[in-house]
Amino acid sequence: MRLPTYADVLLAAGRISGAAHRTPVMRSRTANAACGAEIFFKCENFQRMGAFKFRGAYNAIAALDEERKRAGVLAFSSGNHAQAIALSAQIQGVHAVIVMPEDAPAAKLAATRGYGGEVITYDRFRENREEISARIAAERGMSLIPPYDHPDVIAGQGTAASELFAEVGELDALYVCVGGGGLVSGCALAAGELSPGCAVYGVEPEAGNDAQQSLRSGAIVTIAVPHTIADGAQTTHLGQYTFPIMRERVRDILTVSDAQLVEAMKFFAQRMKIVVEPTGCLGAAAVFAAGRELAGQRVGVILSGGNVDLGAYGRLLAS
Amino acid sequence: MRLPTYADVLLAAGRISGAAHRTPVMRSRTANAACGAEIFFKCENFQRMGAFKFRGAYNAIAALDEERKRAGVLAFSSGNHAQAIALSAQIQGVHAVIVMPEDAPAAKLAATRGYGGEVITYDRFRENREEISARIAAERGMSLIPPYDHPDVIAGQGTAASELFAEVGELDALYVCVGGGGLVSGCALAAGELSPGCAVYGVEPEAGNDAQQSLRSGAIVTIAVPHTIADGAQTTHLGQYTFPIMRERVRDILTVSDAQLVEAMKFFAQRMKIVVEPTGCLGAAAVFAAGRELAGQRVGVILSGGNVDLGAYGRLLAS
Repeated sequence: MRLPTYADVLLAAGRISGAAHRTPVMRSRTANAACGAEIFFKCENFQRMGAFKFRGAYNAIAALDEERKRAGVLAFSSGNHAQAIALSAQIQGVHAVIVMPEDAPAAKLAATRGYGGEVITYDRFRENREEISARIAAERGMSLIPPYDHPDVIAGQGTAASELFAEVGELDALYVCVGGGGLVSGCALAAGELSPGCAVYGVEPEAGNDAQQSLRSGAIVTIAVPHTIADGAQTTHLGQYTFPIMRERVRDILTVSDAQLVEAMKFFAQRMKIVVEPTGCLGAAAVFAAGRELAGQRVGVILSGGNVDLGAYGRLLAS
Repeated sequence: MRLPTYADVLLAAGRISGAAHRTPVMRSRTANAACGAEIFFKCENFQRMGAFKFRGAYNAIAALDEERKRAGVLAFSSGNHAQAIALSAQIQGVHAVIVMPEDAPAAKLAATRGYGGEVITYDRFRENREEISARIAAERGMSLIPPYDHPDVIAGQGTAASELFAEVGELDALYVCVGGGGLVSGCALAAGELSPGCAVYGVEPEAGNDAQQSLRSGAIVTIAVPHTIADGAQTTHLGQYTFPIMRERVRDILTVSDAQLVEAMKFFAQRMKIVVEPTGCLGAAAVFAAGRELAGQRVGVILSGGNVDLGAYGRLLAS
């Protein structure tokens, strides 16, 4: 098992160039004044299909050889990864099968089909998606692309940070949300090369602090699916690739409450006029909690995505 | 009475440079596909204090001579213009008095004071804000800066369009919201010089179509305060400066319903991940209503602002 390195992030940057958006970096006088710091928000909510996941998905498909591309790719997910694989495959002329629960929201099924993905549904109370996916992948010779524990997915996600450093220079700290650790480990690879003094922090919901437990105990800890509005961070454990990278390169894992995520979401809507999904607010909520502890620092934050259910989002804003 | 011209827009662009944001132009594959057109959204929701109003306010204050700057400026408004004057004055070291109703939302009073404005409140059921403002202006020798009917305000607002044309080139049509007509008349001056073939459309809420009536009848029509969620377009009549410019340079005035504004607001939040206030959605709602009629065209839309009450905004998104 070879762990990805910064060289893979560089390769990924070349592959996704022209397909992925080079997302904007936004600033806020209000946030800067509150922390006495200079804060740079890398806006992956403006990425294609609304989240950073496009980077890793596109890179993983682009890295396949021609024969494997012809056989197609497969993913199981009911979230942003499914749409990222469907869209990335469509752009590259690759067939994609997405295995989704049959009771997934109609909007998500439609969006995935809208991106050209072949959706195969299963009964999540009676069937196991890993088994179904493995069977289809074997039968059709398809490449299974997991949502985070894959070298090319990790390297692709790292381009979010390499773009940030290229635009704003070195940073004192970088705050990144953590689900399975694909984004934070990729970003940590970029930081290690482009801003060696930068402390990289992973941030997860306090209801599901498996990454914190894992890094502090030195072994991957698996938890039950956590109850949190950060639906992109409801993973139960880190991966075989992400954990060793994080252990070596991530300074610490912080946690924030759902109430802090809602406050951050409101801040982005009210003051910065942008829609950030709850998971995308993890890094910012930790920065706002740190407040004046960051005085004098140059701080990066990855806003990982902006895909919300309007009803739920609107109710949280009005709460 | 000398009407402003494109030369005044150019002067304004020089004055506001470095103080106002050069706001981004955003695009949407979804919107383009729906209309078969290429649509450019000029995002004044990302302008300082969250709306285009900063442009005109800053320009009007910058255009004063030193003696008048020392005497200070005065505005009456409970909306974006008040905050635009307060902030613009603070940046330029000019004292600003803002006359606001005593029952204005606490958040707006606080925001105006936060920008350094001296707030003078009045009882809107017993007192007349024009009389109060005129008295204070006379007593203190202050310059009253009205929200739209002022050559330097109009010229300042025109820089939103001159920046748009500079960035994307000539357009076939430009859709601009209309309250008192300051923004649309300034933008029409810019279009006349930078994109002479461009049809400029004003868009107002159908509940308050005074501008449509005025342009079609050839005289300024005054209506009662309209009931609409587009609170920035609840003006009752065009101005002595804005009307003749619009009559000469605006192709037509279109109207949209509040329901269409809500649909546009949802589109911006869901697909483009940006917060646009109801008034800011007027132009876009008209474009979405035109749909395929715009096929093959290059179309500009000014998103005028993003200042929302989170509770009301959230409830509309969830509706």
